[in-house]
This record gives sequence, structure tokens and C-alpha cells, in this order.
Amino acid sequence: MPSGGAALAERLRRIRDVAEVLTRPAELFAYESDGLTLERGEPLCVAFPTTAEAVAGIVRACNEAGVPYVPRGAGTGLSGGATPVAGGVVIECARMNRILEIDGTNRSATVQPGLINEQLSLAVRPLGLFYAPDPSSQSACTIGGNVAENSGGPHTLKYGTTSPHVLAVEVVLPDGEITWLGRRDGHAQGYDLRGVYVGSEGTLGIATSVTVRLVPLPESVRTLLASFASLRAACEAVSGIIARGIVPSALELIDDRTIAAVEASVYAAGYPSDARAVLLVELDGARAAVERERGEIEGECRLRGAIEVRVARDDAERLALWRGRKGAFGAMGRLAPDLYVHDAVVPRTRLPEVVEAINRAALARGIRIANILHAGDGNLHPNITFDRRNPDELRTIKEVGAEILRICVDAGGVLSGEHGIGLEKRAHMCLLFSEADLEPMRWVHDAFDPQDRCNPGKQIPAPRACTESNPRHRGYAQVSF
Amino acid sequence: MPSGGAALAERLRRIRDVAEVLTRPAELFAYESDGLTLERGEPLCVAFPTTAEAVAGIVRACNEAGVPYVPRGAGTGLSGGATPVAGGVVIECARMNRILEIDGTNRSATVQPGLINEQLSLAVRPLGLFYAPDPSSQSACTIGGNVAENSGGPHTLKYGTTSPHVLAVEVVLPDGEITWLGRRDGHAQGYDLRGVYVGSEGTLGIATSVTVRLVPLPESVRTLLASFASLRAACEAVSGIIARGIVPSALELIDDRTIAAVEASVYAAGYPSDARAVLLVELDGARAAVERERGEIEGECRLRGAIEVRVARDDAERLALWRGRKGAFGAMGRLAPDLYVHDAVVPRTRLPEVVEAINRAALARGIRIANILHAGDGNLHPNITFDRRNPDELRTIKEVGAEILRICVDAGGVLSGEHGIGLEKRAHMCLLFSEADLEPMRWVHDAFDPQDRCNPGKQIPAPRACTESNPRHRGYAQVSF
Repeated sequence: MPSGGAALAERLRRIRDVAEVLTRPAELFAYESDGLTLERGEPLCVAFPTTAEAVAGIVRACNEAGVPYVPRGAGTGLSGGATPVAGGVVIECARMNRILEIDGTNRSATVQPGLINEQLSLAVRPLGLFYAPDPSSQSACTIGGNVAENSGGPHTLKYGTTSPHVLAVEVVLPDGEITWLGRRDGHAQGYDLRGVYVGSEGTLGIATSVTVRLVPLPESVRTLLASFASLRAACEAVSGIIARGIVPSALELIDDRTIAAVEASVYAAGYPSDARAVLLVELDGARAAVERERGEIEGECRLRGAIEVRVARDDAERLALWRGRKGAFGAMGRLAPDLYVHDAVVPRTRLPEVVEAINRAALARGIRIANILHAGDGNLHPNITFDRRNPDELRTIKEVGAEILRICVDAGGVLSGEHGIGLEKRAHMCLLFSEADLEPMRWVHDAFDPQDRCNPGKQIPAPRACTESNPRHRGYAQVSF
Repeated sequence: MPSGGAALAERLRRIRDVAEVLTRPAELFAYESDGLTLERGEPLCVAFPTTAEAVAGIVRACNEAGVPYVPRGAGTGLSGGATPVAGGVVIECARMNRILEIDGTNRSATVQPGLINEQLSLAVRPLGLFYAPDPSSQSACTIGGNVAENSGGPHTLKYGTTSPHVLAVEVVLPDGEITWLGRRDGHAQGYDLRGVYVGSEGTLGIATSVTVRLVPLPESVRTLLASFASLRAACEAVSGIIARGIVPSALELIDDRTIAAVEASVYAAGYPSDARAVLLVELDGARAAVERERGEIEGECRLRGAIEVRVARDDAERLALWRGRKGAFGAMGRLAPDLYVHDAVVPRTRLPEVVEAINRAALARGIRIANILHAGDGNLHPNITFDRRNPDELRTIKEVGAEILRICVDAGGVLSGEHGIGLEKRAHMCLLFSEADLEPMRWVHDAFDPQDRCNPGKQIPAPRACTESNPRHRGYAQVSF
């Protein structure tokens, strides 16, 4: 443990409802990064609170010691949001994992931040409800982390990201006070601080309870899988579906390299051998509407030259169709020690050319990219396998990452669809924002955390970081669609 | 014009794209209040900008003169948000009323803040789209005012208030800089300042462009009107409908006094003579689902003892059913020179007892209340007719107003469902919030507007205002449903 940590760790151990404090290097190792293994930082110690009061006690102790702190859930984040880049205390909320209340009548639930996303939907299923935001990591990631990152997922197209599903958050503010932002019945008054907190990546305080909206289970769910001989044809089918006014609950695209990885793995889904892109479409809602839209989508896919269209007839077949998609990260993970899952957004209509440009840019550096797209949202996930023990490889894939962002921003896109800015893309915020654009965000940050101790080094670039890279412009919102 | 105003008015007239500056008392009179005529304030002058740059010029001139300013749209607000209570300059945005862009493919539109709400839906109807948030005043109120108040309306139950429909706002900040909050394509990055701006009642800057989400016109719309012999029976029908998992696009309740006012007016809707409460239910969506739900709702209303259920067979009949509801304010306005339209929220299940308690409290002071309820949301609008020229009457109805809020908060409710806090309810915020609860809102306010010149005296109580009335508590979000 770095020097100075021993006394602080001892102090944290004496706080009521702090279950454990880790200090040994071998124990701390696992907390040096989240799912973004490109960057690491060594914490002083890792504390496991079980109540809001314990979190507040830890924050106050850090303030008195002048030490930063970083909230962490399951560590599945992919932008370094939970990486203790400035050292300090990792506040590990994994043991705050209880469901505190389920209110079927008002369709809401109040949970601790360490609850695993999928557990909530399983718990409320008997009431005919579910929790809609479902990151691909939903069987591992926590609601608190989802709130921090305003996480999306396959069903964002229809249901939106996490924010609209969060009614209220109990937060330990950087001054150590516990307060509620928003109101559990949804009837908040005053400024929408709930909204500004969701997606603030742990920089404005630490969530200790979250009240979320639950959604009625749809009457009917239908899943289709369509295979295409080219990425462009699949993308045209995506635009065609949207143009018909249909809002599927998922509209996923898997590119040729991902298909190859999947078919070579235990997740093999039996895609046609000449498939170069696979579209996975899910519809939910009233049975009659779903059946009509299913027919329209089948027609649209065939019109765009689909090699094959499969429609699941029951839940077992539905899960089989999702198998290749859900197993894709695992299939790629088999190929190398590390996986860099990238995340960016472009206007949907630009997808084919952007994917091609990204592949070309990567190939020029000897890197092969496999892409999974939440195509309905224009959200790309270019995936790069690598070995972080190889410094050359590390440098190269960081260069490719930066190039991917430039390509996406040049195409009218943004830096992140759902993984957040975190550590990974903080410097790249200057691609989108001028100094003047960032000022109001810094006002809010400094109002909440004037000492910059709450997850420092994340999301909002430091003052003047963008001065040279991006002179004052008004281009941020002036997107051409 | 109050002294000191002449030089400032002259300066404002020289700003490019300031079309007009009013200074004569007879002209200023109309700008002394918005729709809340209980409180008034005399402005120095009223300026009519036509561009964001002109608004920024006015704000900078006010800063240099040390004078406050108040943004205003159509002045239809009902909580005094546009009332120049501290004097200064009224920035009247009514001439910034153009639609700047309609993007059918991405279902969004960018408009100036002075555009009248209904004009947008009319303009995008040929594209099969509409703008969902529809305050009852939608034929007069402006999008900018809706953004300021985060306005609701009859269709909030299904579509939500204004905030989820706003993608981005161009704002003149209190320092005179022009910036975008949010992003026009919905893919914002960083803190959600768009969200904190919507509903900030003009206290964090002045909106100069708004990009909103458009929604596909539903395939089918069905409207029912059910009459009941008691308020309680109608409220039970409301809860019964919601409990079936149906989310109508509107679920409005009109009480007996409102029925009497409507039936005595040109808006007479022919309600049964023994009706003591009328429920207006609208469904929209896919035809099959709407028809099935219509049947369920008819059954539920009859089960709860409806005297009569009418179902509109076509658009003409549909408008006829809405006639009594839409004409209710007009019908009441005939009875006295002034109308105080109150606004509060309680848990839906508490509606009958709360309405009865409000009626009793008013009657004890010799006041008769007519109530219109967005019953699905638990949102009450107790209406009081009065004559503001009578000081006794004025004092009495302010007392009744305060009593209404206490009753609603005691029942687990909040101060405002859709009209905002404004001037009217600022002091009453202490019923809900402790000093400590309000601190984070003040942090944000002071970060944006450290000089307190941007619509001062509204929404967030001044520091220490709540010290005595409400000791530190955590009751705000700890609602019992």
C-alpha cells in the first residue's frame, strides 16, 4: 500500500457499516481499472460500505485527509470511470445490493446501487413488470454504475437510456451530506438535479439509493434475424425499417469479422456462410401491432436482398437468435488477453461508410476490427483484441482509438453512445466542445465538488485543456442530420 | 417609466435586431404580470428581440446597468414566472416565433422560443408527426415558456411533460454568452445541462432556440366521456383503469362545480343533470390495442357505476366531448374579473378526500372552488374566481391558496404539477424542502447567475428562507405511495 494509506484505512475500518477495507497490493490489483484495461491507477485502499451513512463517513474521512475517492460497482465499465487514476480510496458499492422496495401499483422500485441490473427485472417479473435499460453486461453490471454512465443497451432505441427510467437518486454529496435528487414519485420540484446527476460518471457525488421506473412486460415479443451479403445492404435495411415509422425494441447489426469470431466459438449461431452482416431485430408491444410490423420488417429485409430471414417461433428460438449477439464479446475475448470495446455514435445513414473508414484506418496499422452496432441508434462498438503486456500494441490501439473518434466526429457523430467519457475520452471531448462550451459544465462541477476529490480526472476536461485544440465555435449542437 | 429606465431603453433600441422597446406606462401595464394576476411588478421597459444575438446584447446591457431582466413569451404562465417582480427589463420573445427547421427523417424540429405550441403540431401534421406536450393553453402559450415551466397538460400521463421532448436548447447565459445545452440529434455528451435548464423557470438564462422531438401521429384515437353521480366513483374508475395496466393518452376529471359553470355557458356539453363528476378518457395508438382498451375502460366505468358512457364515433364527436373540458376555463372566466387557476399534485388514490378537504377549507372562508383534474397524474387544478380590485378578497384567496398547498403536501403531494413554482409558490417550497435539501439547487443557480439578475425572486427560495419553517429532514423523496 502506498504510504499514508495505513492511517486512513484504519480510520475507515472504524466507520460503522464499513464491512471491509482492503489494503494489500495483491487485493488492490483487481481495483486498478474497470473494463478499460488500457489505463490503470493504484488506490490507497478499497472500502466496502453497506449503507449511505457509511459512504458519507468515508467521503468525510477522505475530505479530512485531502485524498480523492472513486465510486465503483461491478467494474464492468468500459471507459475507465471507476479507475482510480489519481489514487485515493475506491468506494466499492458491490455489497449495497439490496432491493429496498418494490411498488407494483406505482411501477417503481428503490434499490441500492450495487444491485445487479438483471436481478431487478427477475424480481419484478411476477408483477408483470421489468426494468427496461439493459446494457449488454446486464447480468454483471450494477444499477449504480448504469446511473453513473447513463447506460444504454440493445433496447435503448425504443426505451431510451437509463436517465428517463430514474425517478430519484439518494446521493452522498462531495461535502459529505446525504440528499435526494428528484423525488421517488416522479413529481420533482425545482431544478432537475436528478437529470444532471445521471450520467455525471461519479463526479458529482456517490449514489446510495436509486428509485427507478418499471415498465409493464409487453404482451408480445418477436425476434427476427436477417443475414445479408454486405454491410451496406444491412444498413439500408435498418434505414428502411426506421423510415416505415417502426420503432423496434432492438435493431442490432453484427459485422463480418464478428460473425467469423462467433462462428469459430462455442457461441456459433449457424449464420449462412456467405453472410457478411447479420441484423437482429426485436419487436415488442401489443400482439396485433407486433405481428403487422414483423411482416413489414421481413418484407423490408427481403427487399434489401437478405440472404435469409429467420423468425423465432417461441422463447427458445428467440434466445437462440440472440445467442450469437450476446456471445460475441466472449467469442472475441477468446482471441487475445485483452479486449478494447470501443463506443461511438454517427448518424444512422452514415454507418456503412464510417464502418469502412474505421476498418481501413485500423488495417493501415495492422489491426483488425470486429464491429457490433446498435444500428438503430447509429451506435458503433468497434472491438479490438490486444495484449496489454505489449507496449507497442498498446500504443497502436490507442492511436486507432483516437482515429475512430475523429472519423465519427467528422461524420457528424459523438464520442460515446453508452459507455461514457470517463478516463478514456476525456481529452477527446475537445473534438466536440470549445472551452466556452465546457464552461457551464465546469460551473456545475465546481459547485458540487470545489476541491475536485470526487472521481477526479474523469469526463469534463480540465480548464484550458481545449484552448488550443478547438477555438470557440458553435458547432456542437449545429449538427446536420 | 421609473427613473433610470430612459437611458437603458435608449441603449437597448440601438442593439441590432431589437425590434421595439416599450417604455410608456400604458404600454408597460400589460407586462406587469403573467396569467397569475395576484402579484404584479412594474418593469423599466419591455424589449422585443428577434435573434439570439439581440437577446445576448440586452442581457449584457442589463449586466452593465446592474438591472435585472425577465424573459417572457405569451404571458400565459400561471405562477408569476414572467412577472417582473424586481423591476428591470422584460425580454419579450413573442416575435422570435419562427420554425427554423423541420427534420421529418429524424423526427425533430428546431423553433424559436416565441412559437405558439399548437403551431408546431399543425406545421408537422402533413409529415404524419406531432409535438406531444400540449398544455391546455396550447393555442396561446409558447414553446419557450413551456420549456421554462416544463409544462404538462392533458396528455402528460402518456407522453410526459416537456422535458423528455426537448433535445437541445440554445441559451443566452447570464454572462451574455450564447451556448447550446444538449445536442440537436439527442446524442448529448457530458452533464445533462439541457435537463437542468428545462423547468428552471427562466432563472438560468434565456432560451433562444429549442430543438424538440416529434412523435408519429397515432394510427387511432378514441375518446370516451363517462358521467358519475359522485366524485369518489369517478376517482375509483380512474384507479381501476390504471390498475388494468392501461395508459390512456388523457384521463381528465371535471368536478360538479365545473360542470355547473360549463353547462351555464356557451360551452354547454349536455352532461347528464345528475352528473357530479365527468371523466374524459382518450386512448391513442395501434387500432386493435385502442379498441380493446376502449372496451375495458367502458366496462370499468360501468362497474364503478357510471350514469352514462359516451364514445365518440368520429373526430367531430371527439371534439364535442372535449368541448366542455377545453371551455371550462372560459366558462369560469365569465363569472368574475379574475380567475386563480391553482395547481398541485397528490397520489392518485388520495384524490377524493383531498378534493373534499380543499372544498371544505375554501367554503370555510366563503369561497367556492371548481376543480379540473388531470386525474391520471393526480394533478389538481382548483379554480377560484375573484376580483383583484377587492383587497379583502385578494387576501382571502391567497390564504386559501396556501391552505390548498398544505392539504396536498400533507397528503404526500407536491406544490405544482405543471404551472411551475414561480413567484406564487416560492415561499411554499419550504413545505417540501429543508435548507439542506435546497443547497444543491442554490449551488447550480449561483454557478449560472452569481449576480442574481436573471429572473430574480422566482422558484428557488432565498438562502435561509426555510431555516425556521422546516428543520433538516429527509422527507422529500421518502414519499409513501
